[in-house]
Amino acid sequence: MRLSRYFLPVLKEAPAEAEIVSHRLMLRAGMIQQLAAGIYNWLPLGFRVLKKIEQIVREEMDRAGAIEILMPTIQPADLWIESGRYDAYGPEMLRILDRHERKMLYGPTNEENVTDIFRKHVKSYRQLPLNLYHIQWKFRDEIRPRFGVMRGREFLMKDAYSFDLDAEGARRSYDAMFVAYLRAFKRMGLTAIPMRAESGPIGGNQSHEFQILAQTGESRVFYDRAFEEIDFAAPDLDIERLKSLYAATDDMHDADRCPVPAERLRSGRGIEVGHIFYFGTKYSKPMGATVTGPDGHEVEVEMGSYGIGVSRLVGAIIEAHHDEHGISWPRSVAPFTVGLVDLRPDDPTCQATADALYERLLAAGIEVLYDDRDERAGVKFATMDLIGLPFQVTVGPRGVKAGTVELKERRTGVREELSAEALLARLTG
Amino acid sequence: MRLSRYFLPVLKEAPAEAEIVSHRLMLRAGMIQQLAAGIYNWLPLGFRVLKKIEQIVREEMDRAGAIEILMPTIQPADLWIESGRYDAYGPEMLRILDRHERKMLYGPTNEENVTDIFRKHVKSYRQLPLNLYHIQWKFRDEIRPRFGVMRGREFLMKDAYSFDLDAEGARRSYDAMFVAYLRAFKRMGLTAIPMRAESGPIGGNQSHEFQILAQTGESRVFYDRAFEEIDFAAPDLDIERLKSLYAATDDMHDADRCPVPAERLRSGRGIEVGHIFYFGTKYSKPMGATVTGPDGHEVEVEMGSYGIGVSRLVGAIIEAHHDEHGISWPRSVAPFTVGLVDLRPDDPTCQATADALYERLLAAGIEVLYDDRDERAGVKFATMDLIGLPFQVTVGPRGVKAGTVELKERRTGVREELSAEALLARLTG
Repeated sequence: MRLSRYFLPVLKEAPAEAEIVSHRLMLRAGMIQQLAAGIYNWLPLGFRVLKKIEQIVREEMDRAGAIEILMPTIQPADLWIESGRYDAYGPEMLRILDRHERKMLYGPTNEENVTDIFRKHVKSYRQLPLNLYHIQWKFRDEIRPRFGVMRGREFLMKDAYSFDLDAEGARRSYDAMFVAYLRAFKRMGLTAIPMRAESGPIGGNQSHEFQILAQTGESRVFYDRAFEEIDFAAPDLDIERLKSLYAATDDMHDADRCPVPAERLRSGRGIEVGHIFYFGTKYSKPMGATVTGPDGHEVEVEMGSYGIGVSRLVGAIIEAHHDEHGISWPRSVAPFTVGLVDLRPDDPTCQATADALYERLLAAGIEVLYDDRDERAGVKFATMDLIGLPFQVTVGPRGVKAGTVELKERRTGVREELSAEALLARLTG
Repeated sequence: MRLSRYFLPVLKEAPAEAEIVSHRLMLRAGMIQQLAAGIYNWLPLGFRVLKKIEQIVREEMDRAGAIEILMPTIQPADLWIESGRYDAYGPEMLRILDRHERKMLYGPTNEENVTDIFRKHVKSYRQLPLNLYHIQWKFRDEIRPRFGVMRGREFLMKDAYSFDLDAEGARRSYDAMFVAYLRAFKRMGLTAIPMRAESGPIGGNQSHEFQILAQTGESRVFYDRAFEEIDFAAPDLDIERLKSLYAATDDMHDADRCPVPAERLRSGRGIEVGHIFYFGTKYSKPMGATVTGPDGHEVEVEMGSYGIGVSRLVGAIIEAHHDEHGISWPRSVAPFTVGLVDLRPDDPTCQATADALYERLLAAGIEVLYDDRDERAGVKFATMDLIGLPFQVTVGPRGVKAGTVELKERRTGVREELSAEALLARLTG
């Protein structure tokens, strides 16, 4: 993408209302624009990151055997009355009357809807296990939305729902999601620690939150320092050991009963990026979601639900990956892999070299943002550092003479001069 | 995807409320499930088609130089009050009060929001032309939703918005979208005729609807039969000639003034799948969206908007591509390219052959739905015809002995026996 034809409205100063670094950087880098309290427009750069995260989540859900569907944002109140949650859910639920005065709502979550799909179509245990997920916008009418997309009102969530014949099957479904979550976060450059948590308004029997550690985290968390040595991406991840290690949110932690000796207990602040629940028959019982079991009897299915805050992750990743100059994206979620800077677009040789390199990079399947604008070098470099593409490639008059370009790795700041061929080999290697 | 692990709830009978063939077939093929009047769940098969269509639209927008963003579904009423449309828009607008009693609405379209983005960030004519688009759910509270996803209340729309310095630039932006639309519809296997149309609630100076012809079309349309001979995918499409050919919706057609002689005039019923508008300064003026022109003066920008009904297209494509056995998808939008049927999953040789072929097809990058269920052949073939994958490949005991499989093209019904190698060559050729 040529920056001269792109829409990247970077700001010199972050608006005063932005309290945390990810919010400030997202505004300054032209990723988002507030439309109303807790409601954001995703501008081109932010949109690309959102899609990258969404796609990683999708791939890990598919790999775990979950099947993608899409449930609508607007739901009838009936199903929530049936489950008993319509009155229980507080003012965070956006309640709506349609033109015929029917009670509707903007879904804050989808247990009722997916249970309705299930009970209408699934009749036999032979159709189990089943895990249906979707990636859809939700609305929760937070009384005080803040921290940008980290605590917005309209937010993008992946929510999956598992259906099993019995508790043993439900545990397998739960564990499959547990592992998929660790993989997905790892792919995004995050280490998320699974913590035993309270079930809250979803209700149920077992629950883990996945928290990344950050100074700006919303809640205090406690964990065994053994977590710091675990490779969450290991193919033979020992899930039982992981679950047995102590890690708990503030709600669940009890210093007097904590099984971890003080010298091994760590505490910090966490950002919740995912939450999984096993809640048994909490919805299948009131809503009559049953299957015929192997013995011919009707059985209420065992369910779980599994959420990932897709739009929140954009902020969480920035909290984990930034420095004083701006964002520093992990390659897997970067809006572009390479920022190509033409230092002298007024010099025909420089411009021709940069144009040719741009085409070669694109042809090699690399996503490039090409700063071909007639701007000062300082402005171009500052913009690139701010928006945080993993690699910066600079074409300047000296290099053009020598047949080289400069490659700078954003994260380390390390620079080197190399030929176009060597650059391509490096970036595609 | 193995059908034994998929979620494909096909129905023997279509529910009585489905009035048109696409609605009946989408319900029978397990593509959608109604949640409330005009609000649908997209089940796995339907979701895949929706995503295919979305991706074609995205690629053609990108190719035309438009830039993707994402605006939220919930908007504050303020912007609509500012543009003057808040009171003008009727009961189809879903109006909402949030917990602080602030007036909000579920966006039926996004002219106000995108104009607000523009005026906050674009100051100079040098940043033009600009075309921003998004693919987002909309809500229009139709008094009588019907025809399934063809006239739903919550629906997926691609809407693009162009900004230009002057009328000449705006015309170029309009024409670029005009061509992109013809390309996009053609890629989906549709011939959409551009028709002069009234601007309606969007307002403005020039407008075309893109209509595909179908007996179940909602409105009467008139057109020069010369349209029937045009190759809309031709690289040198003559847009001026296209625009000069007579084609008009019922609203605009006047038999007494029609310039086309009766013997060349065709009429039929059309389904609107896209609509483009050039409306000048209708929004930029009240909302103060100006840029500094080359002469230093402030200029109100010239705007256009361009919509495609993404979810509606799923139904429209079925209206255009079906027969008495079910759907017959164009390959570009098919949920899977191949339906692989194992005639005898109880026969280990058949099963091993089908399993191996499944893996080979996947490895070749072909999307396959593999019916590995323990079901009668008749049920399997009827399901495949109903869901309409372009190619059916059958593995049976006789073929296994002869070293062949049977390939059936869904559209023509033509069958042939061929080796696995020949099959792969055919499908990837």
